[in-house]
Amino acid sequence: MLLPILSSKETETIKKRLLERADTDYTKQQKTVDEIIKSVREKKDEALFSYIARFDGYPANAQNLLVTEQEIEEAFSSVDEGLLSVMREAAENIEAFHNHQKRENWFMESGGKYLGQLYLPVEHAGVYVPGGKAAYPSSVLMNIIPAKCAGVPDISVATPAQGGAVNPVTIAAAKIAGAHNIYKMGGAQAIAAFAYGTQTVPKMDKITGPGNIYVALAKKSVYGQVGIDMIAGPSEVLVIADETANERFIAADFLSQAEHDEMAACMLVTTSREMAEAVRAEILRQAELLPKKNIVQKSLENYGTIILAEDMREAVRISNMIAPEHLEICVRDAEKVLPEIRNAGSIFLGEYSPEPLGDYFAGTNHVLPTNGTARFSSPLNVDDFQKKSSVIYYSKEEFEKVYKKVESFAAAEGLTAHARSAAIRFED
Amino acid sequence: MLLPILSSKETETIKKRLLERADTDYTKQQKTVDEIIKSVREKKDEALFSYIARFDGYPANAQNLLVTEQEIEEAFSSVDEGLLSVMREAAENIEAFHNHQKRENWFMESGGKYLGQLYLPVEHAGVYVPGGKAAYPSSVLMNIIPAKCAGVPDISVATPAQGGAVNPVTIAAAKIAGAHNIYKMGGAQAIAAFAYGTQTVPKMDKITGPGNIYVALAKKSVYGQVGIDMIAGPSEVLVIADETANERFIAADFLSQAEHDEMAACMLVTTSREMAEAVRAEILRQAELLPKKNIVQKSLENYGTIILAEDMREAVRISNMIAPEHLEICVRDAEKVLPEIRNAGSIFLGEYSPEPLGDYFAGTNHVLPTNGTARFSSPLNVDDFQKKSSVIYYSKEEFEKVYKKVESFAAAEGLTAHARSAAIRFED
Repeated sequence: MLLPILSSKETETIKKRLLERADTDYTKQQKTVDEIIKSVREKKDEALFSYIARFDGYPANAQNLLVTEQEIEEAFSSVDEGLLSVMREAAENIEAFHNHQKRENWFMESGGKYLGQLYLPVEHAGVYVPGGKAAYPSSVLMNIIPAKCAGVPDISVATPAQGGAVNPVTIAAAKIAGAHNIYKMGGAQAIAAFAYGTQTVPKMDKITGPGNIYVALAKKSVYGQVGIDMIAGPSEVLVIADETANERFIAADFLSQAEHDEMAACMLVTTSREMAEAVRAEILRQAELLPKKNIVQKSLENYGTIILAEDMREAVRISNMIAPEHLEICVRDAEKVLPEIRNAGSIFLGEYSPEPLGDYFAGTNHVLPTNGTARFSSPLNVDDFQKKSSVIYYSKEEFEKVYKKVESFAAAEGLTAHARSAAIRFED
Repeated sequence: MLLPILSSKETETIKKRLLERADTDYTKQQKTVDEIIKSVREKKDEALFSYIARFDGYPANAQNLLVTEQEIEEAFSSVDEGLLSVMREAAENIEAFHNHQKRENWFMESGGKYLGQLYLPVEHAGVYVPGGKAAYPSSVLMNIIPAKCAGVPDISVATPAQGGAVNPVTIAAAKIAGAHNIYKMGGAQAIAAFAYGTQTVPKMDKITGPGNIYVALAKKSVYGQVGIDMIAGPSEVLVIADETANERFIAADFLSQAEHDEMAACMLVTTSREMAEAVRAEILRQAELLPKKNIVQKSLENYGTIILAEDMREAVRISNMIAPEHLEICVRDAEKVLPEIRNAGSIFLGEYSPEPLGDYFAGTNHVLPTNGTARFSSPLNVDDFQKKSSVIYYSKEEFEKVYKKVESFAAAEGLTAHARSAAIRFED
């Protein structure tokens, strides 16, 4: 049934419906990906160029792999001025929010010793941008700007160029965001080139950005060799609403999630049966008006779910269990609910903070943990493009006070040479 | 040749020797691990208990999987008082340093809108502790205390119990550090139980801790389903020294690294040929005195490397390229070199801050990125046990000012329902 109204007590049904939807077997695609990675790792440019020729119909070589200054100029003159202007304003907002995430090196000192923590940007960040007919410049901004705020000196984009041409909107967004280089390469071969480096493509320290299943599997395969952002799954929104919410708004937000793809999930958790039924009716009415009606219909059929909770506590419990990527809180006093939230990627408070505000404009990141992974992971962040180093300094006098403890702890673990390294400093 | 002295210009040789040492094919072990994970995921307790019986010779069941209060009491009375006391003092130092890493929720407000970032602990953290004859309580402290500082309400340890008994030192360290539960389970089956949950073992949000190759492969396999700390590789130390350094100290620090295992790597980068030769002679002399002579010999043969740099700039360049797990800076003015360091797990300044001080006692974490991964990853940290949530609030008035921009950006991406979600709020 379309949009079933479940009770919040039906925990197992809710879990099954919403948390187990990404369990697909990709053994076949993984095999292809493994071959591509192996080949690019071993034969470097030669393999990379041959895959690009095969998949993108573009005779790539060491001279034409980068988007040129001329292509950049052409892109800016071909993109609509209104779009450029809104992209620039969004970029400013995104930069302001992410600059707030930056951290200062710190030291804790006492007597003749100190400990500290340094925050250093990675040196090379690779951002993947999918190709295809549609361009998603918002996603380009969201991936590049945190790297820029982190101070990454080389931000490189990889994007497939069908026939050698990159979508001008992608180029413009990448330059507005602060990318240094744009490589015309896509798929698992681009990820492999970024992870291992070739003669033409420098080896990256971190790779982020969305992509199809081949790109996702390639990212997981090279994880450890290089840092990655996350394995993105299908997208979802969960709305917590009481009887004061506006069913038209909620229905519209549901549908904006459902139009992404057939795997997208929309959930309403409400304390009001009237609201549950009103939202349901509104969704069915508004869905008829959308051009992507078929995708929307499939997403709603598969995963559209309305849950009736006895009270707000119960509603929050369900939300924390789902750990939604996007959480809209549409209740009388949304700020009162906020401290109860344990797991959510991005939290939208009140009726005038709909998900698309965060997707495009407000400044928070729209690259978010999906499919329950907000239990342990975070929105894309300046932290993703920095790493920490610990610092230890002890003077001779300070180490003399404690070296016997170090020695005895090491000895208790049977690590004689560790113990010696402490003791030798105070011999004779 | 043992401890060759290379020129810092031999970049390719240095890279090959030190950065490509962990490239082993684990296809066979991976197959075993995949089977274990699949089986535990499907048959839960039944599979888990049967693997435990097979690998640990212990008839595990739902009643005896947890270390009991009585076992905990017995552990504390059997462990040496001196060791307990040094563990408690180390734990205090580790807690002080990691408490410094905690972050405060923040909001940036302007007019009728604000954005913010929340830091929330994961709910369930699983820490793996290897079994076997030797116990490494320092590693138990290092994994659990950051989770405790992060505010994790359930910190669960998994450790194999040969014949049902857990090493009392492991139990004592886990309780001193703040673990809530200790499960008698090990290997890939323990990682699978933590990742998917069973009737007896709750599903974890994050899994950390060292282990053998089966544990490491299992962690990589479940990554994405659950957060993990990192894929730990073989350990290494790099020492930057000038002519003022003490060759006896450096040699002792080399050997403390080399005793870990045959894959461990020790590197000296020095601007002084006399120092290079003096350290080399000292290592050969001191190595003879160690009980783990055979391991040390193998590690030195395979990866012990001395690099002669023309000047400090060149020495730092080599260090940044290697991105060492441990970096000791033993030069006239170590603090002057610190700002040049780009990639390193933990940095030890001066002659009286040897690596074992950080391994055991000072308070920084000894779980560090190995084998070049300090390019993009960090010491184990409170951040590993927390995740962020973004918060967005716009009043009606604030959203009214910008909703047309959101609408146009969404429309430019062809996402009609996103555009509608913004527009519907100001219709009629």
